[in-house]
This record gives sequence, structure tokens and C-alpha cells, in this order.
Amino acid sequence: MPELRRDPIIGRWVIIAKERGKRPSDFVIEKEKTKGGFCPLCPGNEHTTPPEVLAYGRSTFAPNTPGWTLRVVPNKFPALVVEGDLDKQGEGIYDKMNGIGAHEVIIETPRHNETMAQMSHDQLIQVFWAYRDRMVDLAKDMRFRYIIVFKNFGRAAGASLEHSHSQLIALPIVPQRIEEELKGSQRYFDYKERCVYCDIIRQERSQNIRIVCENSDFIVICPYAPRAPFEMWLMPKNHQSSYTSMTDAQFHSLTDIFSEAMKRLDKALPRVPYNFMLHTAPLRTPQLEHYHWHIEIMPKLTMIAGFEWGTGFYINPTPPEESAKFLREIDLEG
Amino acid sequence: MPELRRDPIIGRWVIIAKERGKRPSDFVIEKEKTKGGFCPLCPGNEHTTPPEVLAYGRSTFAPNTPGWTLRVVPNKFPALVVEGDLDKQGEGIYDKMNGIGAHEVIIETPRHNETMAQMSHDQLIQVFWAYRDRMVDLAKDMRFRYIIVFKNFGRAAGASLEHSHSQLIALPIVPQRIEEELKGSQRYFDYKERCVYCDIIRQERSQNIRIVCENSDFIVICPYAPRAPFEMWLMPKNHQSSYTSMTDAQFHSLTDIFSEAMKRLDKALPRVPYNFMLHTAPLRTPQLEHYHWHIEIMPKLTMIAGFEWGTGFYINPTPPEESAKFLREIDLEG
Repeated sequence: MPELRRDPIIGRWVIIAKERGKRPSDFVIEKEKTKGGFCPLCPGNEHTTPPEVLAYGRSTFAPNTPGWTLRVVPNKFPALVVEGDLDKQGEGIYDKMNGIGAHEVIIETPRHNETMAQMSHDQLIQVFWAYRDRMVDLAKDMRFRYIIVFKNFGRAAGASLEHSHSQLIALPIVPQRIEEELKGSQRYFDYKERCVYCDIIRQERSQNIRIVCENSDFIVICPYAPRAPFEMWLMPKNHQSSYTSMTDAQFHSLTDIFSEAMKRLDKALPRVPYNFMLHTAPLRTPQLEHYHWHIEIMPKLTMIAGFEWGTGFYINPTPPEESAKFLREIDLEG
Repeated sequence: MPELRRDPIIGRWVIIAKERGKRPSDFVIEKEKTKGGFCPLCPGNEHTTPPEVLAYGRSTFAPNTPGWTLRVVPNKFPALVVEGDLDKQGEGIYDKMNGIGAHEVIIETPRHNETMAQMSHDQLIQVFWAYRDRMVDLAKDMRFRYIIVFKNFGRAAGASLEHSHSQLIALPIVPQRIEEELKGSQRYFDYKERCVYCDIIRQERSQNIRIVCENSDFIVICPYAPRAPFEMWLMPKNHQSSYTSMTDAQFHSLTDIFSEAMKRLDKALPRVPYNFMLHTAPLRTPQLEHYHWHIEIMPKLTMIAGFEWGTGFYINPTPPEESAKFLREIDLEG
């Protein structure tokens, strides 16, 4: 019999089709293939992007030239624009404001085809540093209330450029999904005086059936009520509400565990398209007792159709216990 | 400059990229093509589906034989199952229950390739009757609290069968999206003592820039804060919270306006994949002053990627004023 499961944070229900229990080999994966052609993100083509806002690794002081190991540039086709006032106004019963925000592209590596599963520790940690550095810088702009960092890998997951990159959008409002997490975790805290994410980690470590991997500082699990097969959540083990509060040691530890999770995913489902989203506290908030930053990784294996659109419910053909077992048992040496 | 717009019911924000203003011809549409092959939904193959729960048009009393004009059967691969108890239970901090529900397929026509844009009035009205008849019947099962009717047209929109069909899922809980609409419209009603949907209709009729078509009983608009290009909402003009409360005359009127909307969409974006979802009040609730049933029609032209997953925000490259103008000005005679 299928099972209905409820996410303990935002209350979202999912249908877990236990019988069907799809294994990785059951999915038809739109494997990401290299198409080639001109790449605006490759070294030597720096002039084809808007001027960079951050670069690491260059030994000279000449911006927008080769020699970088990581580079951040404004999106050439931004969803939101930096210049202007918010200008909130009504239109009868409707509300609108100017589309003020920042939309940046984090070029994760100079090597066109290098995926996150392939990157060295030294390369990957720069990506996480760049997220922090851009967040800290953009937080100074009082018009922005939230920064979402995300990655689309593969065309099926919405990527339009092939070169390894993630994106960042600074928003003038706290988005609905984050508000739901903040409210849900506040409600839990009001009742229990504990962080719901900390309680999840405690239960996952004691049940030990949905853990993918862990180290001293971080844990990666398949969540109890996942929207998609092989969905993973990466969380700091010790309570921390903001990504930018991490210590140097935590950055190294995060890089290790994230790298391991991506290697496991890539070996289970080679070159599977995926999205990941970094959820952290809103800008300029003090440490929150009830909220816990985390990264949600969603392989793109199922479709969003009328049922999901109409209900906010998800049908997931793979129980997280099976996803986690499969990912955990991957032999990374073999 | 892009514009941020807020849905007045559930508070969802969308980014309307006004400059980019994509017209129908700017989209690469995954046009739905006929593949052929064996069809379990075609007349003559009735024995390949689970036994029917409703059929119209057959002149004999022999169920599961040809001669029908519309047929409803249980889904052969149901997301939820009918037999069993709900058996709600906790698992530490998590909640779960048995996947009890009904999952049915409405075979809209005996003609394999006939789309909703092509159907005669007499055919299409049977589809709407079938939705009502199945809702009324399933509402007698006290385990069910909500019925969602939806359609996936085209593989890109999640359809796995080619033959014209819609689906219905009876759920033991009211889904999150509907709860959001119920709560949002209740909040509006508490403040204004008016139905927010009625106010939307009033404003749309006075502004007259987002109307696609209307008749005496119904209106079709492109909503102010649409998630997707060419998204349409169909609403009864007079307040009504439940689909099953419609009069005979309203069924005819609904059929006319829905047919016109689908013809306009199909002419603007030939054979575009789409989803539609029927949102109505929960089962066995009295008429609600604050809620208003409606149909949301979502052509599949954009992708859900990391930003949408991470935020619940949508980026829409076509303002609804342009979508509505284009659909409204389609010449249905030409």
C-alpha cells in the first residue's frame, strides 16, 4: 500500500509509492551530454560576460582576463535588475513592486566540463566561499531581504549554459517557501523549545535508515517526506541558522561532505540532471534558535504535472529509505 | 524593468519579465505528436482497463463493452488505493498514514485523437458531467476529504497515455495548495466581507485588459500574477464555492466558455502541452462565502528549475496583459 508522509517543517504531504519502489536503473535519465560550441564562461571569453564582481586565483590585478580559478559575473539576462527603487504600489486589489534585485552567475571552475562530482577539494571550497562572499557583500544593500543560491545542472533541470555554474538571486522580499520554513520551524519551537531540524538530525542518527553520509560537522540524509527520488538534504549537525556563520573548518568539512554526496549521486545516476538550493536565514537577521540552514539537492527524475500543480502534493515512486541505502552503499573506490 | 506581482489570494509572488515579453512564436513548443500503437482506452479494448465505474452513451446494459461516449475507470497504476483504513500514526517526530484514496481516469471520448479544443459541445459537456457525478459519488466515502480533478495533455505536461483523458484523485486530506487558497480567501473575507475571487472578477471586468473571453455565467482571465505564460483561470461570475452546485444551464455555459478558451489556446499555440486543475471546496462543506471554485489552465512553456524549487517564486517571461490580448484577438473563424 502506498504511504502518505508529512514533512515535519512545512507540513507538505507526499505520496510514497512503496510497492513501485523504483531503483536508479528504472529511471530513464536524460543524461547530460556535452554539445560544445562557443562558451561565454570559458577562460579567454571574459569580455563576453558583464564585468565580474568577484574572482579568485588570478595573480595579476587585471579583471576580466584569464588566470582565475573562480569568477562571479552578473547574469547577462537577469530576472531582476540592480538599479532603481522598490516603489511598492497597489493596482486595485493587486500589489506590485519594481523588479529590483541582483542576479549573478558563479562560474565554478575554468574547466568547461568539470562537474561538482569531479572537482578537487581546493576547487569546490572556492564555490562555497564565493556563495558566502557574495552574500556578505549583497547584504549591505538594504533593499534586499533574501538571497537564494541555486544550481541547475543539465537542460532537463533548467540549465541553459553547459559550463559548470551556479546562480544567486538577491530578492526584495523573503520568498514564500522560506517563509513557510521559518513559520513552520517557529511553530515547532514554540511548542517544543527545540529546533525541528536538530530533532530531525537526532532521529535520523538514531534510526540510521535514511543517512547517505556524514562527517564531524555535517550530515546528508534522504528526507522522510521527499518530493523526488534520491532527494537529499545536507545539514550542519550543530545548530546554525545562517550559512555565512560557518567557520573556516566548517567550510572544509562542508566541502568534503558535499563532494562525497555528489560523487555518490553521480555514481548512482551518472550525469543525472539536478537542482540544488541553499536555504538560509533572511539577510541581517541575528542567529535564530528555530531555523537551521541546509542545502536541498533534487535529482530530476520525475515530472511536475497537473496533480502536483493542483495540490502541492508530490508522488514519489522511491521511498527515501531505498534511495539512502542505494546511495550509502555505492562503492566510491570501485 | 521587470515587475514583482503578488497573487491576492495566496500571496505568491511572481517575477514578470516585461521587457522580454515573449509572444507565442518565441516559445519552442514540444508539440504533441501522435505515436499510435495499442491504446487501452480505445473502444474495443475495454477489457484491458480495470472495470468501469461510470459510462455514458451506451444503449445496452453490458458494462466494459464498446458503444460508450465517455467512460471512467480506476487508474491501472493508482497513486493511492481504495481498500483499507487510514491508520494515522507517528514515527518519532514524523507523521504518516496509509495511502488511501481513489485514482480514476476519465476517458473523455471514444475517439483516440480528439482534443478538448476539437470536441463538440455534446461531447465536452459529458466530461464536465462526469467530474460532477464521480465527485458526488466519491463524497459518500467519509475517508475522503478532497477530490482534485486534473488533466495532463502531452508528454511534456506529464501525460503517459495519448488518448484524451483527464484524471481524478480522492484524498484523505485537504491538500496544501487548496488550504492556502481557503486560508487566504478567508483572511480577505474577514477583512473585507467580500469574496476575493468576486473582487478579482469585478476588477478584471472594469480594467478589461486580462480577459480572454466571457459569457453570461463564466469569465476566463489571465491572472494578474501568473506562474506561466498564457496561464488562464476560468471562474463562475456569480459566487459559488463548489463545482457540484452548478445548475444544468451552468453546465452548458461552462462547456461553451471552456471550449472557446481551449480553441483560442490551441490556435495560439497549436497542440501545446498543458495541465489544468479544478479547484473546488472540500467535500461535504456547505456553501462557503469566501471561496470560489475555478479551473486553472497552465500551458507548459517554461521550466521549473532551482530558483522556483528553492523559493516558490516563478519567473514568467510573458505579462498576462499580453497573453490575454493575444488569446482574445485570435480569430476563431479564420
